[in-house]
Amino acid sequence: MSAQSARAQIGVTGLAVMGRNLARNFARNGFTVAVHNRSYARTESLVAEHGDEGDFVPSETIEDFVASLERPRKVVIMVKAGGPTDAVIDELLPFLDEGDIVVDAGNAHFPDTIRREKALAAKGLHFVGTGVSGGEEGALLGPSIMPGGTKESYASLGPILEKISAHVDGVPCCTHVGPDGAGHFVKMVHNGIEYADMQLIAEAYDLLRVGLGASAAEIGDIFEEWNTGDLESFLIEITADVLKHTDAATGKAFVDVVLDQAQQKGTGRWTVQNGLDLGVPITGIAEATFARGLSGSVPQREAAQGLPAHTAGWEVKDRESFVEDVRQALYASKIVAYSQGLDQIAAASAEYGWDIDRGATARIWRGGCIIRARFLNRITEAYERDANLPLLLADEFFASAIDQGLASWRRIVAGAAQAGIPAPAFSSSLSYYDAVRAPRLPAALIQAQRDFFGAHTYRRTDRDGVFHTEWSGDRTEAEA
Amino acid sequence: MSAQSARAQIGVTGLAVMGRNLARNFARNGFTVAVHNRSYARTESLVAEHGDEGDFVPSETIEDFVASLERPRKVVIMVKAGGPTDAVIDELLPFLDEGDIVVDAGNAHFPDTIRREKALAAKGLHFVGTGVSGGEEGALLGPSIMPGGTKESYASLGPILEKISAHVDGVPCCTHVGPDGAGHFVKMVHNGIEYADMQLIAEAYDLLRVGLGASAAEIGDIFEEWNTGDLESFLIEITADVLKHTDAATGKAFVDVVLDQAQQKGTGRWTVQNGLDLGVPITGIAEATFARGLSGSVPQREAAQGLPAHTAGWEVKDRESFVEDVRQALYASKIVAYSQGLDQIAAASAEYGWDIDRGATARIWRGGCIIRARFLNRITEAYERDANLPLLLADEFFASAIDQGLASWRRIVAGAAQAGIPAPAFSSSLSYYDAVRAPRLPAALIQAQRDFFGAHTYRRTDRDGVFHTEWSGDRTEAEA
Repeated sequence: MSAQSARAQIGVTGLAVMGRNLARNFARNGFTVAVHNRSYARTESLVAEHGDEGDFVPSETIEDFVASLERPRKVVIMVKAGGPTDAVIDELLPFLDEGDIVVDAGNAHFPDTIRREKALAAKGLHFVGTGVSGGEEGALLGPSIMPGGTKESYASLGPILEKISAHVDGVPCCTHVGPDGAGHFVKMVHNGIEYADMQLIAEAYDLLRVGLGASAAEIGDIFEEWNTGDLESFLIEITADVLKHTDAATGKAFVDVVLDQAQQKGTGRWTVQNGLDLGVPITGIAEATFARGLSGSVPQREAAQGLPAHTAGWEVKDRESFVEDVRQALYASKIVAYSQGLDQIAAASAEYGWDIDRGATARIWRGGCIIRARFLNRITEAYERDANLPLLLADEFFASAIDQGLASWRRIVAGAAQAGIPAPAFSSSLSYYDAVRAPRLPAALIQAQRDFFGAHTYRRTDRDGVFHTEWSGDRTEAEA
Repeated sequence: MSAQSARAQIGVTGLAVMGRNLARNFARNGFTVAVHNRSYARTESLVAEHGDEGDFVPSETIEDFVASLERPRKVVIMVKAGGPTDAVIDELLPFLDEGDIVVDAGNAHFPDTIRREKALAAKGLHFVGTGVSGGEEGALLGPSIMPGGTKESYASLGPILEKISAHVDGVPCCTHVGPDGAGHFVKMVHNGIEYADMQLIAEAYDLLRVGLGASAAEIGDIFEEWNTGDLESFLIEITADVLKHTDAATGKAFVDVVLDQAQQKGTGRWTVQNGLDLGVPITGIAEATFARGLSGSVPQREAAQGLPAHTAGWEVKDRESFVEDVRQALYASKIVAYSQGLDQIAAASAEYGWDIDRGATARIWRGGCIIRARFLNRITEAYERDANLPLLLADEFFASAIDQGLASWRRIVAGAAQAGIPAPAFSSSLSYYDAVRAPRLPAALIQAQRDFFGAHTYRRTDRDGVFHTEWSGDRTEAEA
């Protein structure tokens, strides 16, 4: 292929369903798209089936694929995270020139992205790890896009990504998140928050089902109603849809024929493991991740069947108030989950030197992605009021929302404990709220115990310094 | 040094306080101990100060140190985990011979131990990563010792370690845990359980302090009383001690002058991260680890001061019943924490091929270590009744203990939610209990949501197979 044919504005290699849809999205938005796949048949079928949607430039070899791109070349890799991504990068390298931009749009773990960016930067190339959320449909019709990498790469790549992203109120759901791994990091936390959001919805459903005794379809109606208010979001919308769906084979509510073992692909786990590394208490995401693990712990669940319950039962006096209590508990717990997730982003931003704008992050989550919600505007506004806000739930809007729902939240968590309905994420979020606002925590006792058995020292409330008490001696205190 | 001087039965290199005390423990138990330290001054001071306690063989160089040992040589390394451990191993290697045994008694992360064991095994050497718990005092007077490595190495090393370990009812608190990293793994989970135990005690204290309005000293008396019953343990004992201690400088209760920010050294974090990798819900340990992180989240805590409480207050009608409710909640939550930790050991044992005897593990924790407790006999008995017990809390003894305390536990968790006293580990443990015993979990809804937005498929309750519903189409179901 000769130089004059280097006319594609962007290329996509890896044409499984996500890559294929992303390539079509580029083409449908007027970009000339170079396309390549390990097996050429898939490339051919893309062009055969969707060639009329725009301008595709198919190549059989990676060399031709690269040669078909305008400079600086922009190559989007959409293959399985891990080894396959490294393999494709290695194949591309011999044909790339200084200033070219390699985009990893897969679900990479952010430390891998940091490593790859460093390696490619040393060769004069830009490496952009980017989160893409929205599943197959989002990839085709407009996902939420979270690119990392250099500002320089964003200057030429950004406008293309912004054009194919989802738009809300005319604003693209794509922004430059920060250097190297920042994009994949933010996508990871997005998924962690998604876990928490789904668990909270599941607990709300369970409370309405078991506590109130409502049917799945009735609860579907409740969620539909909720979707017109503060909770309006994609997840609430599809929950209503799922709950109202009837299984054709049995005529039962669909949700009742689905096995109650939730699976996971790992990003929730990564999020919690990173929260532990950073020391950020993301208890909502942790409980949600563990709840999935528990649901799949079959031998343990079998062994526990028939264990005593000693439940008082739930005396629901007023159906409307009960439903409103659950709604408020869900909303307040959701605020905690997002507050914790954004806290984690702030901590990571400081730790890895990313300078992430949390308001802008919430803004690009408003459309295209799984956690898209009306609610996210409020988060953006909170960070517009104070870009360095130390705690989202202390922002005036969210503090007031919690103020309004707090009594309901307490009733629901207390009621669930008495009725034996597991509500780990509701309870954990309330515990977090009560702990973070507490003027004094019993952590003082823990630190004292640590000094007692391990001479780990402690600080005092009344003066600076680090101290140790001679617990096995005369119990005098000495500065350490 | 000539061959005839190779008379030490065991050697210790790294003579900071832990190594020094371990060396003295060997000597005091009649073993001839070779001692070595990077700076010879420390070796000399050990012999000068404690030479009368037994038979020490000091060496200035690592070569002489190795030469002073009987074959197969047994070298205990007690240095900082990580790089320093690798450095000492590298220094030792040139002087060791096939069949020699290198023991790492530091706080290594178990994957490092697996790596080191493999490397040394390839050279014909035994590498034994061993957990040692009990702090400085334990190292000197009898710790709980958790050695990994080969059975062959345990045959000659085990009797020495068993002799210097703590003993309970004449039984040593040391056993061969399993191959390669098993010893350090079990020590890690021990520490994770320790985190949970300490957090539960802190929550019990907080409930008595804030809910009941008792003074620190009064609560010290309550803990002292508790230490005569089911809760009898080292941690309960020292809690009573700490709570009754008065600060000399201010005349206040000591616990009130300690800054309420609990620190950590990382083993809790490792435990939770591994629980996530294995998919084992260790929520008690996770909440405890996050609670420490939260206590140190100063900007967040400052921002949250003054946030609304809407608490009902706690109307304690009967002091004795309230105290008993807290005791029962503490005991039941503790059973959950241990059950989760032992579940993690079982999962790791299967994952890494360790064949760990959980009953034997509980037995060696009865003495010497931080979580030593009467309670551990009950755990050993449970695994004696059924070595493959899938869930500790379903064992007849623990099920009956929970049966007795369940109503109390529910009252305390519900009351804490209403009174605004954070009880994350109590609440999370109760949620776990209610979830694991639930015949049906709302995880079915989560799996349905996953199929809706990501085509992640689901299984059905009524027949085998993996299914997907065409949510955006005609909603027919197809086998995937």
